[in-house]
Amino acid sequence: MSRFAGEVLGEFVAGSRWSDITPALRHDATRSILNHLGCALGVAQDPAVTMALSVMREFSGAPVATVIGQGVKLDPMAASFVNAIASNLLDYDDTHLATVIHPTAPVAPALFALAEQRGLPGAQVLHAFLLGGEVECRIGNAVSPGHYARGWHITSTCGHFGAAAGCAKLLGLNAEQTWHAIGIAASQAAGIVENLPTAAKNVGVGNAARGGILAALLAQKGYKAAPAAIEGPLGFARATGDAPELAAITEGLGTDWEIARNTYKPYPAGIVFHAVIDACLALRQEIGAPERIASVSVAGDALLLARGDRVVRNERDARVSIHHSAALGFVRGRAGVADFEMPAVLDPALAAFRAKVVAKLDESLPRGAATVTLRLVDGSTLERTVIAPIGSLEHPMSDAALEAKFRDNAGIGGFADRADAAIAATWALDSAPDVMRLMTALP
Amino acid sequence: MSRFAGEVLGEFVAGSRWSDITPALRHDATRSILNHLGCALGVAQDPAVTMALSVMREFSGAPVATVIGQGVKLDPMAASFVNAIASNLLDYDDTHLATVIHPTAPVAPALFALAEQRGLPGAQVLHAFLLGGEVECRIGNAVSPGHYARGWHITSTCGHFGAAAGCAKLLGLNAEQTWHAIGIAASQAAGIVENLPTAAKNVGVGNAARGGILAALLAQKGYKAAPAAIEGPLGFARATGDAPELAAITEGLGTDWEIARNTYKPYPAGIVFHAVIDACLALRQEIGAPERIASVSVAGDALLLARGDRVVRNERDARVSIHHSAALGFVRGRAGVADFEMPAVLDPALAAFRAKVVAKLDESLPRGAATVTLRLVDGSTLERTVIAPIGSLEHPMSDAALEAKFRDNAGIGGFADRADAAIAATWALDSAPDVMRLMTALP
Repeated sequence: MSRFAGEVLGEFVAGSRWSDITPALRHDATRSILNHLGCALGVAQDPAVTMALSVMREFSGAPVATVIGQGVKLDPMAASFVNAIASNLLDYDDTHLATVIHPTAPVAPALFALAEQRGLPGAQVLHAFLLGGEVECRIGNAVSPGHYARGWHITSTCGHFGAAAGCAKLLGLNAEQTWHAIGIAASQAAGIVENLPTAAKNVGVGNAARGGILAALLAQKGYKAAPAAIEGPLGFARATGDAPELAAITEGLGTDWEIARNTYKPYPAGIVFHAVIDACLALRQEIGAPERIASVSVAGDALLLARGDRVVRNERDARVSIHHSAALGFVRGRAGVADFEMPAVLDPALAAFRAKVVAKLDESLPRGAATVTLRLVDGSTLERTVIAPIGSLEHPMSDAALEAKFRDNAGIGGFADRADAAIAATWALDSAPDVMRLMTALP
Repeated sequence: MSRFAGEVLGEFVAGSRWSDITPALRHDATRSILNHLGCALGVAQDPAVTMALSVMREFSGAPVATVIGQGVKLDPMAASFVNAIASNLLDYDDTHLATVIHPTAPVAPALFALAEQRGLPGAQVLHAFLLGGEVECRIGNAVSPGHYARGWHITSTCGHFGAAAGCAKLLGLNAEQTWHAIGIAASQAAGIVENLPTAAKNVGVGNAARGGILAALLAQKGYKAAPAAIEGPLGFARATGDAPELAAITEGLGTDWEIARNTYKPYPAGIVFHAVIDACLALRQEIGAPERIASVSVAGDALLLARGDRVVRNERDARVSIHHSAALGFVRGRAGVADFEMPAVLDPALAAFRAKVVAKLDESLPRGAATVTLRLVDGSTLERTVIAPIGSLEHPMSDAALEAKFRDNAGIGGFADRADAAIAATWALDSAPDVMRLMTALP
């Protein structure tokens, strides 16, 4: 490779003009932001968020950046730390399927915090988000799948690059400074998969946003990084991966947008359980009363089985359970946030139905697909296969569905009355002179 | 292994009593602190330090923690970030030789910042430093040598654990909270070797101190980490190393202290160049005028040759150059901070002497040793081999030599007049009711 990966990315980010960005991409960016803000609002009362806020209050400069749903402002680093934690807390946010990166949580909080501090227009935030997300997902592509398999929480690690690149754009850094900001991110990128079932996961995601601001500001002051911080023999890609595919970072840059492959979840469950839920909801429409069901068989690929064939003891189990997913589809006919919380875990009707569900391997099914087969009490059987569930690339959530998800989340967080204003301000971001109208709607 | 590594470390740290710590270990801790503070003072005017300070000013809560040599206080996270950068900036600080960790830079700044904020006594800082340093070096032993070889800057990565464990002790966390703090560090630990020649290195070291405070405070509030965050299949050790030796974390804990193996550098050069300098200084005593020398041959092991046989173009080259080390020994008869800076690099007398030096491999020499052979203009030869240079474990710097190094550093930073007060306050730390006397001496 004749040029450094960071060099190419730096030129791309610094050289990109808003006028080059298609309306479709602009709309994608806005959808990502809407989904992100709703997810953060929904968990405003969660102890993982309020604890992080209580720690960061002591370590904040001038309070200029909104902490979503907390009625308080902090400095941009502290605010972005808490907001990134909130956005990704339940993994209900977005997913870049090829890497399983949640692209927006580490990037957008850093951008909104800086934009609020500096009075920057909404279009600049959207533009910086697209560029940061693009850098994040492309570096993620390059190190996948060995990176995650080795134990790296890719949202946290690659999120550092995305936040750094996005902040560099927002601050108007030149190509070389942006290259250095991305290189500084390589010395900050951390987060391990072992910690995913715990609050320690959130620290990695929060640090990505906070570290992105730090990287960009240090690069602006004159801090340098190694030219090959990403691809060098002792750089990020080789240290964290086993066989990085470095060409993926730059091939098709600016024409083939990875961030355009972002997806949104209709259900707050693991992404591979969405086909199970869709299939069960569809079958419930057919059969009516779930009492007619004698047993349920759910078939999927090895990943679905490995992750989802488990006893459900708590909320984290429920969100990655084949049995709970099926029970919700048939017993409740819905799968919202409350349907994965402890009252649902302990609900006798759901527990009884979970016991009727058997998981089995079907290697012919692609990843993310599921076949649900019902045996009814009358002895007859029904079957439904879902290859591309709602929320997949082939079957994306509509704007209306994203708005409904936002309202649902806002209601859970206790902000139902502000949902309409926040939704309207989000759709209007691309022409907003600053982000104040939106921030004011996220009390 | 029947118990988790973090569990054992958490019990050790939380259960340790100051009365259990021997006078020798207490003295070791104080020596580490003295060396650390001097190194930080010496670079107070360096742009890498002042740039970091200028960025962090904007992101600081109440100014309660001294930024060494800057005449300013910041909040504990921001102050510790800058102070950790300063301490390790020139790699002139301490070295745990088995891992090449610089143990004090990531740990002590976090402890002093919290102690200054909370009015904690000096003995608690020394105690927390020993425990944090011990955790840091033991985890470092477990992942070495594969960790560094893969590209991980071990001072930054393992520094996160040391700072978290030390802060947990200082804040009085119980065993379980300390276990979680160490686990949270696993989701923050970052820093790559590729960036070592640049300022991006410093960000990793600064983050270790800052992240340690964050980890301990989050654990105190109730944040949890995975039980096997260090040794689990998707945890820190396997993600960052290839064949971790996990038993090294806990074997002999509390009886065989790794932090007691800390060493201090008399010269601001790479540690493997110290034997070269010592041998040349000794030969200079024998021959008197360097004009008598026709040529110099320096023999060492493969590491010395790989790192040190290079053209000297800048300060970073000078600090890892066989030729510059030898030239300083013979031409200047000293090797202080100024002797590795640009005026020395460009000094015609040194440049001419460097050209007389040839490096050659001697596989029979142990790591860190060197044989210097002189051919004089009269045709005779002299030879000197140094196996254990000054500053090695076998030949440690005396307290007086550490004080002289402190004074040298203080003078370079512009604080010669405060050196005596700072040295006296450091030696008195173990009986100091708080750290104010010492902090006041580091303006």
